[in-house]
Amino acid sequence: MRSDFLRPLRSPAGSEHVSAARIAESVLATGPAATDVSAFHRAREAAQDRIYTHAERVPLTSLADWRTSPDEDAVRHRSGRFFAVEGISVRVAGAAVPAWDQPIIHQPEVGVLGMLMKDFDGIAHFLVQLKAEPGNRDGLQLSPTVQATRSNYTGVHRGKAVPYLEYFRKAPPDRVLADVRQSEQGAWFLRKHNRNIVVETGEDVEVLDGFHWLTLAQIHRLLAGDDLVNMDARTVLSCLPFAAPRLLERFAPGRGGLAAALLRSCDADEGSLHRTSQLLSWITEGRTRAQVEVESVPLSELTQWRRGPDGISHRSGRFFEVIGVRVEAAGREVGRWSQPMIAAPAPGLLALLVTRFDGVLHALMQLRVEPGLRDVAELAPTVQCTPENYTELPAEARPPFLDLVLGAGPGGGRRSVLFDTMLSDEGGRFHHVSNRHLIVETDERPEHPGYRWMTVHQLTGLLRHSHYLNVQARSLLACLHTLTASASASAS
Amino acid sequence: MRSDFLRPLRSPAGSEHVSAARIAESVLATGPAATDVSAFHRAREAAQDRIYTHAERVPLTSLADWRTSPDEDAVRHRSGRFFAVEGISVRVAGAAVPAWDQPIIHQPEVGVLGMLMKDFDGIAHFLVQLKAEPGNRDGLQLSPTVQATRSNYTGVHRGKAVPYLEYFRKAPPDRVLADVRQSEQGAWFLRKHNRNIVVETGEDVEVLDGFHWLTLAQIHRLLAGDDLVNMDARTVLSCLPFAAPRLLERFAPGRGGLAAALLRSCDADEGSLHRTSQLLSWITEGRTRAQVEVESVPLSELTQWRRGPDGISHRSGRFFEVIGVRVEAAGREVGRWSQPMIAAPAPGLLALLVTRFDGVLHALMQLRVEPGLRDVAELAPTVQCTPENYTELPAEARPPFLDLVLGAGPGGGRRSVLFDTMLSDEGGRFHHVSNRHLIVETDERPEHPGYRWMTVHQLTGLLRHSHYLNVQARSLLACLHTLTASASASAS
Repeated sequence: MRSDFLRPLRSPAGSEHVSAARIAESVLATGPAATDVSAFHRAREAAQDRIYTHAERVPLTSLADWRTSPDEDAVRHRSGRFFAVEGISVRVAGAAVPAWDQPIIHQPEVGVLGMLMKDFDGIAHFLVQLKAEPGNRDGLQLSPTVQATRSNYTGVHRGKAVPYLEYFRKAPPDRVLADVRQSEQGAWFLRKHNRNIVVETGEDVEVLDGFHWLTLAQIHRLLAGDDLVNMDARTVLSCLPFAAPRLLERFAPGRGGLAAALLRSCDADEGSLHRTSQLLSWITEGRTRAQVEVESVPLSELTQWRRGPDGISHRSGRFFEVIGVRVEAAGREVGRWSQPMIAAPAPGLLALLVTRFDGVLHALMQLRVEPGLRDVAELAPTVQCTPENYTELPAEARPPFLDLVLGAGPGGGRRSVLFDTMLSDEGGRFHHVSNRHLIVETDERPEHPGYRWMTVHQLTGLLRHSHYLNVQARSLLACLHTLTASASASAS
Repeated sequence: MRSDFLRPLRSPAGSEHVSAARIAESVLATGPAATDVSAFHRAREAAQDRIYTHAERVPLTSLADWRTSPDEDAVRHRSGRFFAVEGISVRVAGAAVPAWDQPIIHQPEVGVLGMLMKDFDGIAHFLVQLKAEPGNRDGLQLSPTVQATRSNYTGVHRGKAVPYLEYFRKAPPDRVLADVRQSEQGAWFLRKHNRNIVVETGEDVEVLDGFHWLTLAQIHRLLAGDDLVNMDARTVLSCLPFAAPRLLERFAPGRGGLAAALLRSCDADEGSLHRTSQLLSWITEGRTRAQVEVESVPLSELTQWRRGPDGISHRSGRFFEVIGVRVEAAGREVGRWSQPMIAAPAPGLLALLVTRFDGVLHALMQLRVEPGLRDVAELAPTVQCTPENYTELPAEARPPFLDLVLGAGPGGGRRSVLFDTMLSDEGGRFHHVSNRHLIVETDERPEHPGYRWMTVHQLTGLLRHSHYLNVQARSLLACLHTLTASASASAS
C-alpha cells in the first residue's frame, strides 16, 4: 500500500476515443498491404498439411476416456476435467413452448479469447492464428491470438504454455482495449462465458508458425468467405471499441450510401431512434417479466430424447444430437483423443434486418430467452432459428421476420441482401455446425414488442458490459462492420 | 407490426442530460419550501399511532404458518410463498476464509422499488411513503413510492392493489429516469435482486395518507438522521442519473471546497484517476479470477451453526441469527402474522474513504466476493464489516482501512469525518439491523490491489447496469450525495 500517491488525472475518455479511431482506421485501410489477403490464403493452403485434425464419428459409448454408460447422470471425462454433457428441464412461463428438457454442455471454467494488436506503418494489425479444430468442416480457420481455458490461464495445470498468453495475463491497464466476459450459445451451453480481451503492444513480437498479423480490412475480407473466420475470432472482434466521434467526416467526407450510414451508426454524436436509457429500461422490463426455471436432471430421465448407439438425439429428429468423435491431430499438443460433440441436422439462420433512420443505420434486435444464459435473456439477431424446423408450419407459427429476410433479393428492391456467408460455431464442441449469416437492408421499419431498432454505437456501448448481446448477435455485428470496409475499398 | 413507421431521431443523450440536471437542481434547491423538513417530522410523529408494527421475538418453532421443524431442509412458509431460509456451503479458493456454511434467505421473486418524480414550482419532487416494517428499531421510515413483490407487480395474486403501482407498470418509455435490477445483501440473500425504477409524471397525483412529496434536498437532510430513510429508498436514490455536464459552473460557480469537488466528481467532462475502460477491465479480471462455489445443503447439515429454541445461530455467537417474530400491525393489509427474520448481534460498519485528485472527489471501492451475489463480486464500500468481530485480532488480520476510517476525527486533520449516521437494513427481513454509515475524507491516497479510486460519475455510469455496486455501496453513494446539499444550503 503506497501513501500520498499522486499522478495527473486523465481526461475522461480521451485515450478511448484514440483507440476507437485507430481501430476505425484499420477497418478503413486501403492499398494492397492493408487489404490484400492472397498471402494469407497461400499460407493457409500451405499449412493444411502440417496443422490439421481428422475427426471420425464413432459411437458415443466408444469414447475411451469418457463415462458414457446410459446409467450415468451425465457424460463426463474420467478425469473430471474438460466438460460434461448433462440434462436440464426447462420451464418458461408464457412461452410458445412452455416446457421441455434437453442435454446441455456444462463447462464451468471461464476461458480467455485474446487478440493482440500492434501498429505497423501506422495501421493497427491483429495477430491471428490458423487453427485446426475437430469440428471444422473445411480445415483451418482464422482464430484469435489466444484461446485458452482458465486452467491454462492461471497455470493450475502444468503442460505446454499457451503462446502469447503472457501478453494478456500481464497487460498494462492502459493497453487493454476491451476486456469483458461474454456468453456462448445459450441453447447448448449451461451458463458458459468467456473473457474476450484485446490488448495493444508496442513490443517486438515473435511471429510463431501458424500466426499472422492482419489489418481489420483484411480480416473483414476473410469474413466474407464461408467458414474461414472462427466464432471465437468473431466474438472478440465484436467487442472492439468502434465509436470514435465524427467518423464520417474523418474517414469518408461527403460520402453517402450504406457505408456512410454505417459510419454514422458507429458515431456517439449521431442520433438514435431510442435513447440508450430507454433500451436499458426495455431490457430490464423483459428480464424482470420473464420467468425461466432451469433444473438439472439426469440424462437418463430426459423424456424427449432417446439414447441410441450413435448418441443422444431428439425423438423428433430435430434440434441437435450429442455424438462421439475420434480425433487425430497434427500441430497440437495431443495427437489423438476422443470426445463428445454436438451436431445439428440442419444449418441455422442468423439474420439481421437493418434500415436507415435519418441516414443512420439501425439494426433490429430481439430480447431472447435461452436456458443456458446467466441473465435470463440477451439481445439476439432479428432472426435466430433453424428454418427447416418451420417449413411445414403456417406463416403465423414461423418466427417473426423469417419470411421477410428470406424473401430479400440481391439488391435494388425494398429488401436487399448485404451479407450472406456460412460461418461455423466453435469447432472444439460443435461438429460441422454452421449458420447462415444474413444481413438484409430494408426501407420498411417494422415494429414488434419484443424487438428494438438500435445503432451500432448503442450495441458497442452495451458490449463494454457482460451478457447484453448473445454470441449470435456478436457474430453478426462483426459481419456488419465488414460492410464499411468493402464500401471504402470499392470507392478507393 | 406497423410498417413504414417514421419519426424523427432523438439526439443521442440530450434528454438524459436534462433529467440529470433537474435532479441536480432538486438536490441543490435552496429556500424553506425546498429544504425544510419540520413538516415531515410532524407528519411522521402524528402517523406513528395510525401506522405501526409491533414485533415481538418468539421461538422460531412457534411460527404458526411456517415449517420450522429441525428435520426440514429449510424454513418455509406453508403456502410455499414469501421466502425461505435455506442452507448453503460456500468455497472461495484462496480467500482468508476459504470454506464455510451458513443459512441464507431464498426469495426468488424480483421485487419493484419505485420512486415517482414530479415538478412543483420548477423543482423535482419525489413521492415518499412513511412505512412501518417489523424490523424497524424506531418506528416509521421514509420509503419509496412503491415496494412491491413480483406477484403484486404482475397481478398474479389477487389482493389489495399496491398504490401508485400503475405509474411504474405503464410508464411511458421517455419518462423513465432509471430502471435497473440491483442486488441485495449478498451475505444474507441468495441471488436476490430488485428492480429499481424512477418514473417522472406530469399528471395530477392524489396524495394518499402516509405519502409526501419531498425534494432531494429534503430527503438528503433526513438521510443525516439515524434510521429515518430506509434501505429501499437509499438504493433507488443511488440509481438516479446525476451526471449533467458542467454542474459546477451551473450550480456553484467559483465555489471551492468539498461541495465543488463533489460536483466535479459528478461531471462526465471532468477527469478521473482511472479510465472507465480500465475499471471495467479490473472488474472483469477480478470476477474471472475468483472461484466461488455455492452449494445448497439442508439446514440440519450446517456444521458451524446450532439450532436452539430461539433460532439458528453460529457456534461462535458471531455473524447473525435466524429468529422468529410475531407481528401486530396497523395501517397495513394484514393485522397479525409471524415470520422468521435475521438479527445481528453487533452493528456493521460501512465506510467510504474519499479524497480529491486535481480537485475531483474520488471514492475508494473494493471488489468484494459475497456468496449470494449473482455475478461473483460487486463493488463494495472501502470498509464493510462488523468491527466487533475483529477487536481481538492483530492489525494485520483486520480488514484494510478499518483502522484508518475509525481513527478519523471530526475535521481539520488529515482524516475528517464528513458523514456518520446509523441506517437500517430492510425492515421486512432484518430485525433491528443497523449499519454505521461513515464517510471519511483523507489527503492520503492509499492504493491496494483489490481497491480502486473512482469518481461519482463513474459509479453513476455503472449503476445504469445491473450488479456492479452492492447494496452497501449504493447506500453510501446516496449518503455521499447529501454532502452537496448540505454544503449548498450552508452557503446559500
